[in-house]
Amino acid sequence: MTSALTAELYRRIDALPIVDIHTHVEWKTGTAASIGDILSYHYYTELTNSAEFQEGKFPFDDPEALTRQILPKLRFITNTVQYDWLMTISREYLGIAPSQWQPENWKAIYDRSVEVMGRSEWRQEMIEQSKIVRVFLTNQYNDDLEGLDQSFYSPCLRTEPFILWIDRANEREGLGEFLGRPIRTTDDFVAAIDKTFEKFVRHGMGYAAMSIPSNFQTYDVAVEDAQRVLDKAVSGSELDACEKELWGAWAMDRMCDACRKFDRPFHLMIGVNRDVYAHGVPMGMDLFDSVNSMAGYEHILNKYVDVKFPTAVLADTSGLELTAAAWIRHNVYPSGHWWYSNQPTDIAREVRRRINAVPQNKIIGYFSDAYYLEFILPKFRMYKFELASALAERMERSLVHPNMEPFSLDDAMILAEQMLVKNPAEIIGIPGI
Amino acid sequence: MTSALTAELYRRIDALPIVDIHTHVEWKTGTAASIGDILSYHYYTELTNSAEFQEGKFPFDDPEALTRQILPKLRFITNTVQYDWLMTISREYLGIAPSQWQPENWKAIYDRSVEVMGRSEWRQEMIEQSKIVRVFLTNQYNDDLEGLDQSFYSPCLRTEPFILWIDRANEREGLGEFLGRPIRTTDDFVAAIDKTFEKFVRHGMGYAAMSIPSNFQTYDVAVEDAQRVLDKAVSGSELDACEKELWGAWAMDRMCDACRKFDRPFHLMIGVNRDVYAHGVPMGMDLFDSVNSMAGYEHILNKYVDVKFPTAVLADTSGLELTAAAWIRHNVYPSGHWWYSNQPTDIAREVRRRINAVPQNKIIGYFSDAYYLEFILPKFRMYKFELASALAERMERSLVHPNMEPFSLDDAMILAEQMLVKNPAEIIGIPGI
Amino acid sequence: MTSALTAELYRRIDALPIVDIHTHVEWKTGTAASIGDILSYHYYTELTNSAEFQEGKFPFDDPEALTRQILPKLRFITNTVQYDWLMTISREYLGIAPSQWQPENWKAIYDRSVEVMGRSEWRQEMIEQSKIVRVFLTNQYNDDLEGLDQSFYSPCLRTEPFILWIDRANEREGLGEFLGRPIRTTDDFVAAIDKTFEKFVRHGMGYAAMSIPSNFQTYDVAVEDAQRVLDKAVSGSELDACEKELWGAWAMDRMCDACRKFDRPFHLMIGVNRDVYAHGVPMGMDLFDSVNSMAGYEHILNKYVDVKFPTAVLADTSGLELTAAAWIRHNVYPSGHWWYSNQPTDIAREVRRRINAVPQNKIIGYFSDAYYLEFILPKFRMYKFELASALAERMERSLVHPNMEPFSLDDAMILAEQMLVKNPAEIIGIPGI
Repeated sequence: MTSALTAELYRRIDALPIVDIHTHVEWKTGTAASIGDILSYHYYTELTNSAEFQEGKFPFDDPEALTRQILPKLRFITNTVQYDWLMTISREYLGIAPSQWQPENWKAIYDRSVEVMGRSEWRQEMIEQSKIVRVFLTNQYNDDLEGLDQSFYSPCLRTEPFILWIDRANEREGLGEFLGRPIRTTDDFVAAIDKTFEKFVRHGMGYAAMSIPSNFQTYDVAVEDAQRVLDKAVSGSELDACEKELWGAWAMDRMCDACRKFDRPFHLMIGVNRDVYAHGVPMGMDLFDSVNSMAGYEHILNKYVDVKFPTAVLADTSGLELTAAAWIRHNVYPSGHWWYSNQPTDIAREVRRRINAVPQNKIIGYFSDAYYLEFILPKFRMYKFELASALAERMERSLVHPNMEPFSLDDAMILAEQMLVKNPAEIIGIPGI
Repeated sequence: MTSALTAELYRRIDALPIVDIHTHVEWKTGTAASIGDILSYHYYTELTNSAEFQEGKFPFDDPEALTRQILPKLRFITNTVQYDWLMTISREYLGIAPSQWQPENWKAIYDRSVEVMGRSEWRQEMIEQSKIVRVFLTNQYNDDLEGLDQSFYSPCLRTEPFILWIDRANEREGLGEFLGRPIRTTDDFVAAIDKTFEKFVRHGMGYAAMSIPSNFQTYDVAVEDAQRVLDKAVSGSELDACEKELWGAWAMDRMCDACRKFDRPFHLMIGVNRDVYAHGVPMGMDLFDSVNSMAGYEHILNKYVDVKFPTAVLADTSGLELTAAAWIRHNVYPSGHWWYSNQPTDIAREVRRRINAVPQNKIIGYFSDAYYLEFILPKFRMYKFELASALAERMERSLVHPNMEPFSLDDAMILAEQMLVKNPAEIIGIPGI
Repeated sequence: MTSALTAELYRRIDALPIVDIHTHVEWKTGTAASIGDILSYHYYTELTNSAEFQEGKFPFDDPEALTRQILPKLRFITNTVQYDWLMTISREYLGIAPSQWQPENWKAIYDRSVEVMGRSEWRQEMIEQSKIVRVFLTNQYNDDLEGLDQSFYSPCLRTEPFILWIDRANEREGLGEFLGRPIRTTDDFVAAIDKTFEKFVRHGMGYAAMSIPSNFQTYDVAVEDAQRVLDKAVSGSELDACEKELWGAWAMDRMCDACRKFDRPFHLMIGVNRDVYAHGVPMGMDLFDSVNSMAGYEHILNKYVDVKFPTAVLADTSGLELTAAAWIRHNVYPSGHWWYSNQPTDIAREVRRRINAVPQNKIIGYFSDAYYLEFILPKFRMYKFELASALAERMERSLVHPNMEPFSLDDAMILAEQMLVKNPAEIIGIPGI
């Protein structure tokens, strides 16, 4: 590794503002209230539950108790990048050195965190310190968005209730309440989508998004067939796998219709298997399937020629498939590095593939997936270091590569800024960036 | 990266003659007539179509207009290895510096290209400059091969019309015309294959080849079943998926029979999904599937024990499967790095796997897949640099690795020459090399 | 590559004792009797058979003839890591320099090997020289374990006869003989498992193990259904694919029951396709499938919450799936690098993934899979060098990585010792380590 060059490039890339196009931040609070909130992030509970099993049971409603309980278990995961994120939060925001993270110090750490994070200026200070300029949210159709600061937050619509959960009575009722009448017909359903988009657009909508099960299928479905499935669901009968798939395909098209109508992208997050680990912590029960084909998306990608599809994949086995799709399909944009693929080994490979074969105006470098604003900085740092490393390698190769002109530090920075700031702004359409 | 050593190794590897075992070069012309031909290569039209969408519509019949139209879009793809290929062509053949590739210079670039490429000596000059000694072609059964220079070109038979397209009336008619009688019986079909091989062998046949859909299946099929499918196709009825698969499996065996009879290899190119991007440029509508098993080939690989199967795979997920097959199966030879896998990231991994685990006399290093002779040099350079890099790493590791003797520069060059020149010559049987 | 640091780290890691949790060593002999035994290892016969085909036919019952026959073919595989293992055996144990491995020296090499390996002190000497402190075996239920040295060997039960081969009359008869009555009922079957575990535990059982076909499925099966399948098998009728799958799922649960009852781990080795290369050498006819999902194991992993499942995967495409499973599932432990994935390229990637995302107390670094004790050292060396390389990279990165504290040589050694010695000891429960 060309350490000095990587460090210099990292230093420059780190000076860029952060545009974070996918998080789970709660806009009404934003930051954590204490280190207990930070430690409640599923990465820490799942990794420590995995290292020293306790049936996924942590005192999630008592941040202080959670801190006391998790701290002694952290020794098992000091090797992980997730622990490195935590130490960055500790060092940069709390002023606590990593060496202080000993079980016996749990109270001091907790108290210090409350002291720092409890101040009313905290949110603004940490945003400025971290140079975060724009944060995209994950919202349900019925989330309260009144008062949302559109100069900083972009709400994004989570579409699973529409596409995946129509067979659940409570979900249908929720949609019906939102619409103002029960969901009985496909027209009702489309009206609910439209009403949702109208609301979101009013609040500066980022995009529609969906975390999609492995091997999801898209195709044309006749509206009569969709109505038939809806009737069955409304009648209280359980849908079989075919009916669910059929509804998913039909509803996916309707969501794409809305993206087209309201001129918003559809962010695909491909390949999750939900609730497969029975003894896990909340949010720590999902895995992915290495057997996952993107062929199931051909229909919408071809049909919705004027809809943009930023796309993230969960499986490493989908990495080149995504690169190839972004290489030839004009409406597929590789977006970040998601969840199990969000660690240095797989980021390093995918960054190189994308830089070598995807048009540079199409690559969305990174998003944090953070639950609190405090996680944005450490996660972006992890990515930025891998990007710096890839660009440093490219600079060095360019000096001896028979096909390349010298790739300068300035060239590297232009590309980095494009991937991290300009492309997200242009592809999604972020006002003011 | 051990830059100095990589550069030195590259320099030596670059001095080797180029044996290119798979191209799409038109033997009657060979070279491009202008930079418009070069830019019509699907990589440039697909990448720029992807970067700035225009529904795949380019003025393919007007090279000058195509040049004018594509040049401003190239700024989006300067990061790609495909752009690096183009710059190598510009620098090495046209004497135009990469810095000159500005939209406003399109006419000067075009004119210069016509000046250089229009000369009657051009083909011979560029072949000599590039040290290209043997080029394999991609030919249809009814291609005109009269006058082909067998000391330079080896025609290779594309077998898709036989194996995949028997249900298309025009394809059957073409085969019938070639044979001299309509294809009505399986005997007619076998006779058409035999007549094709006889013709190709007369012109110095390289091998039979096929680019094969994902998850193709091979197995024994009774001739009666094949005849039944053929009857149905001839009657004008559409074949269902099972019938197509069945014909494919039967016809594949017949093609292998011919390879055995005429003692020619069968080059498998595994895993393409054709025509899946509806809005793409010509040749830029195909992708691959990450879900693709090589298990479907067990039947032919076992049955045709005396037929050689050089094999290329399109999916990164097939990389270790190919290495493992070549490692134990005597008749599977890993061949080059194909299409979406033909970029540095995936080449680097597969080169290392093959060098570490496949007998050295079985590895066919690279082919260019070029449409014009001008692309051979830049593509081979890309590969040769990755090979040099892998060999430099091996040399350095050998100095400290507890299991290795020093791996010298001479050792590295012996291996490189074997992969790039000797193995292709011996495995395929190239006269004069 | 940071050669000096890698070398220093390797030197230290090499000083650690070897705990080898999976081998095929025959405990009654342990070592090879001559270089002919070493060369009979399927890696050498399969690679040379692949390089220069001889229909898998080697004189396996005549070590001297085998040596004479294989030696001239070794020139084709000098590039492979398997050849490097052989040279390490030659250098370290026989005192023969790699340069001496010429076909004409075959007799001298053979004689020297008999001289060294034939001595009665040989086994003890090579174990001490190689610092091997514990070796796990692969045993059939009816293997003779009387006299086994439990301070050095741990017998492990191979479960394929129970789970995969119940439809073979001779396997059923074998089980019946062992049990003392024919296997007619599911109770008989469970009794045979219990009797087996009782025997193995008496001899210091390591764990139960199974090399499992691609895409194996686990799920609950009613005992009546299992009895029905058993009845059909006993009646001499052939089982169809569904019945075999059903038996496999039921029997897998029964094996897990026994693991729970006797408090022993179940080592899963996932993803082999047996006997697919028809012309191979013994043990050299198996491959894997890149299409292989771990989803099939959800049932047992969830149900047997208190059984430990060290897990190895054969396909590179299962690498991140395994890392993710070990990351959240408390009872999945990534174990070593198996067979086709047991080469530097794939080890390097998986080592980094695991170190970055799996709790450090859950990673079982390596096992050799050796057939003779002599193979343990060279294989561990290969792994240890990749581990040293990954740790050296981590040390260097830590100096410039914005999220990391300096990762020292001592930190690296603590992690290495955990992966190579402490974790295997604690996870499997090895007395005395």
